[in-house]
Amino acid sequence: MNNNVRIILAGPRGKMGREAVDLISNTSHFTFVAALDHRYGGSSLKDIEGMPSLDVPVYGEADTCFSEVEADVLIDLTTPDVGRVHMDKALDHYIRPVIGTTGFSDEDIERIRAKAEEKALGAIIAPNFAVGAILMMKFSQMAAKYFQDVEIIEKHHDQKLDAPSGTAVKTAKLIDEVREKKAQGHPEEKEELAGARGADYEGMHIHSMRLPGLIAHQEVVFGGEGQTLTIQHDSMNRASFMPGVRLAVDAVMQLDTLVYGLENVME
Amino acid sequence: MNNNVRIILAGPRGKMGREAVDLISNTSHFTFVAALDHRYGGSSLKDIEGMPSLDVPVYGEADTCFSEVEADVLIDLTTPDVGRVHMDKALDHYIRPVIGTTGFSDEDIERIRAKAEEKALGAIIAPNFAVGAILMMKFSQMAAKYFQDVEIIEKHHDQKLDAPSGTAVKTAKLIDEVREKKAQGHPEEKEELAGARGADYEGMHIHSMRLPGLIAHQEVVFGGEGQTLTIQHDSMNRASFMPGVRLAVDAVMQLDTLVYGLENVME
Amino acid sequence: MNNNVRIILAGPRGKMGREAVDLISNTSHFTFVAALDHRYGGSSLKDIEGMPSLDVPVYGEADTCFSEVEADVLIDLTTPDVGRVHMDKALDHYIRPVIGTTGFSDEDIERIRAKAEEKALGAIIAPNFAVGAILMMKFSQMAAKYFQDVEIIEKHHDQKLDAPSGTAVKTAKLIDEVREKKAQGHPEEKEELAGARGADYEGMHIHSMRLPGLIAHQEVVFGGEGQTLTIQHDSMNRASFMPGVRLAVDAVMQLDTLVYGLENVME
Amino acid sequence: MNNNVRIILAGPRGKMGREAVDLISNTSHFTFVAALDHRYGGSSLKDIEGMPSLDVPVYGEADTCFSEVEADVLIDLTTPDVGRVHMDKALDHYIRPVIGTTGFSDEDIERIRAKAEEKALGAIIAPNFAVGAILMMKFSQMAAKYFQDVEIIEKHHDQKLDAPSGTAVKTAKLIDEVREKKAQGHPEEKEELAGARGADYEGMHIHSMRLPGLIAHQEVVFGGEGQTLTIQHDSMNRASFMPGVRLAVDAVMQLDTLVYGLENVME
Repeated sequence: MNNNVRIILAGPRGKMGREAVDLISNTSHFTFVAALDHRYGGSSLKDIEGMPSLDVPVYGEADTCFSEVEADVLIDLTTPDVGRVHMDKALDHYIRPVIGTTGFSDEDIERIRAKAEEKALGAIIAPNFAVGAILMMKFSQMAAKYFQDVEIIEKHHDQKLDAPSGTAVKTAKLIDEVREKKAQGHPEEKEELAGARGADYEGMHIHSMRLPGLIAHQEVVFGGEGQTLTIQHDSMNRASFMPGVRLAVDAVMQLDTLVYGLENVME
Repeated sequence: MNNNVRIILAGPRGKMGREAVDLISNTSHFTFVAALDHRYGGSSLKDIEGMPSLDVPVYGEADTCFSEVEADVLIDLTTPDVGRVHMDKALDHYIRPVIGTTGFSDEDIERIRAKAEEKALGAIIAPNFAVGAILMMKFSQMAAKYFQDVEIIEKHHDQKLDAPSGTAVKTAKLIDEVREKKAQGHPEEKEELAGARGADYEGMHIHSMRLPGLIAHQEVVFGGEGQTLTIQHDSMNRASFMPGVRLAVDAVMQLDTLVYGLENVME
Repeated sequence: MNNNVRIILAGPRGKMGREAVDLISNTSHFTFVAALDHRYGGSSLKDIEGMPSLDVPVYGEADTCFSEVEADVLIDLTTPDVGRVHMDKALDHYIRPVIGTTGFSDEDIERIRAKAEEKALGAIIAPNFAVGAILMMKFSQMAAKYFQDVEIIEKHHDQKLDAPSGTAVKTAKLIDEVREKKAQGHPEEKEELAGARGADYEGMHIHSMRLPGLIAHQEVVFGGEGQTLTIQHDSMNRASFMPGVRLAVDAVMQLDTLVYGLENVME
Repeated sequence: MNNNVRIILAGPRGKMGREAVDLISNTSHFTFVAALDHRYGGSSLKDIEGMPSLDVPVYGEADTCFSEVEADVLIDLTTPDVGRVHMDKALDHYIRPVIGTTGFSDEDIERIRAKAEEKALGAIIAPNFAVGAILMMKFSQMAAKYFQDVEIIEKHHDQKLDAPSGTAVKTAKLIDEVREKKAQGHPEEKEELAGARGADYEGMHIHSMRLPGLIAHQEVVFGGEGQTLTIQHDSMNRASFMPGVRLAVDAVMQLDTLVYGLENVME
């Protein structure tokens, strides 16, 4: 692991950004060399309302920032459009980008990969920084090789509009890639009340609970004769994404190409 | 509590019956005075295959049994038809019946109640001896006065044909009797996959999981701003009914009328 | 239930106070008539930093507030010392106090009870407003009559210094009042690693888990032959206290004496 | 996967053996060619009390069995002493052994490995056939690379004498091999009741719950800022070992050496 990683943070005022400010300033082998924020160019981080008292220069413009500041890594938590532009510019200045946004086209990804490899620099695009959720999905896929029967129950606050959650569907998709096909439940089972057995995804059943007081939870339950194996993730707030950001920063220093998806730098 | 309760057991060879044999012989204030089994009249319990080595007389016929044996309580774990006949005959002989079968008509119940009261004897009909499940339902109804939002998830082995389970529906019904009506979830929530939000029972959602390895489980989850309260019952086997049988025997000694439903002798 | 309850809130800037501001202003049958805050006397709630834009007069002094404002209930979320003074003064002005602080002596309680009864006014002292936690304790005590075997596991963030939690010990105490005494576990069980079987409270075992990511959780697990019954409370944040505050306000309007402990106005 | 695996089962009358009888006769690509049972040599499986009506020859002596019967795999569920002898003899007759017993010395293992490799035959020694438990341990070790904080709670029936369970200690050991060392909990935390924080294993805390009604359960809970990840295994009965036996049979057909530990044939 690198001893001292010099980091520029783009987007310090967003919800994720604020958490990242804390992460960078509290991680001993990270040095917070600059922030990038189009509204506060020329100021210091401590002058921005709600920010901790850190004397870190804020740049309003990416090119100036990347050419004036000696940095190893750019953490970008802005928007897809801005993130895409920052990615290219960072690599041009030999700064390794860690980008937490979605919306990259296949062409974008190919272009960035080519540029990263040409310069032998690491780059990471991570649509999901939640290490716990990524492990839940990874373990679920592994378990599906040994347990054909599985149901998913995801639980969220009752302000959530869609059911099932994107994570539940992605988990089911990953399981479906490896498990032997099976329509679960008894072939003659009957719903006395419609919907009791949940949604069907390729023979697997998914259930969505919505209640005030819940935050974001998922259980993946595998069943075999005489046993069950449950993999459960409970997410309370955005602080849960920070271990993933830290992991990405450490990983990008070891890479010489682009990696898409945090799961691909996790063993 | 009565010091020494003399018990006749009808139906010792059924699944419940075998458990009851163990219960009666292992409870210090119970005395096992006779068994009633139409196929083994005249023998001793220890002569019946699979029975423990207990020297308890077995009668093949109810009238003979009830008139020859001095007993306080009849535990009847036979069939509805036989149980109904035994109930009347036991009361005729001043033996208090504890009957674990269903299928009594309103007229049956009125007739038995009248007879019990005339003789100032206790009698209990208990369609469900599972104390844990009864408490789960009772607590759920109590909690519903304080939490309007609730979902039920019941989990059973995948050989179960009906969904949701009878216990889940009964729980929802008990909750519905007291809670302020509410259609739960966000008014604009949308099922991307049909069934994800489960079955609807008067605005409550019920989910049924079916997997090999599960036995019989139910969670009732209440949600309020910033908190959830969960009441969960896990039932592994028929031994779980025995505390209810014991409770019924002790309760019936204190009664001078018929009680229908074990919940009505529980505080 | 009263149609329109006029409320004074003392201590609007504390963590609980901020939640109460939201509660009062968002409950249709509550009217927010004044706040009491020694630092902001003479201003309006909307002038205090971090407060919502509510035009509610703020008083700096209790006597003035209680004599000038027509109110039914005082919700006091200040400190024990201040709360004790407010309680007396509110009753003097025929305002029913709902006090969320601890530290009342037996003499305090007797004096307040006498004054409340003399004026035929309700008053509530509630050291704990968490309805879910109160129900968990109440149900646990009820279940202990039927299940002699029980263990408690409480789970909190790793910044908590004491173990077990006060709620776990209070739960064990309530169970101990009703259950048949029993030293649980096998008489010859042996800890290969000291502490594995947790703390002992009158024969019951209590386990304390401490991890980052946890907030405040407790499971009370009852075990009987072939079944378990679990009562679980998960508390995420202070918003979880508000249903208890609301309940107390509605209850205090129906009382004509002092009630100590929210559990005593819950059925 | 092999289309038709001819299997000899040694030890059909033990608890595991009876389950294996069902497994072999109900798996379409397995053929049940013989059983080995010193007490019933010369009979047929269907003649042994409690066995299903299968016309499978039973041999009383291993050498005769292995030389007379054409078989691919020996499943041995006898005792350590007998299993060790069978292992050698099976390889001598070019039958691949799958042995579910413990107690092999390092010399035994080396000798068997040499013999297996000389004959280019697979052989498996599996002290634990519980696939779910093995996956729980494997996933726990993987998660420990990303989450430094972890506690284990294992729950068993109250007839279990030792605490913590062997599986809990083995899980902690596997985690300890990879995680960054840490004494968990707050440095100044204090047990008000001794034992509340459980047993300490290299800074990790382990809790053992014992209740009637529980069977064999373990939860491994990882905590990080704002999230928890839980891996839970619930084992109900010995049928839970059969998928592991099936897996071992399929795997041993692909091997040309000895593998010790089922986890080493699982990806």
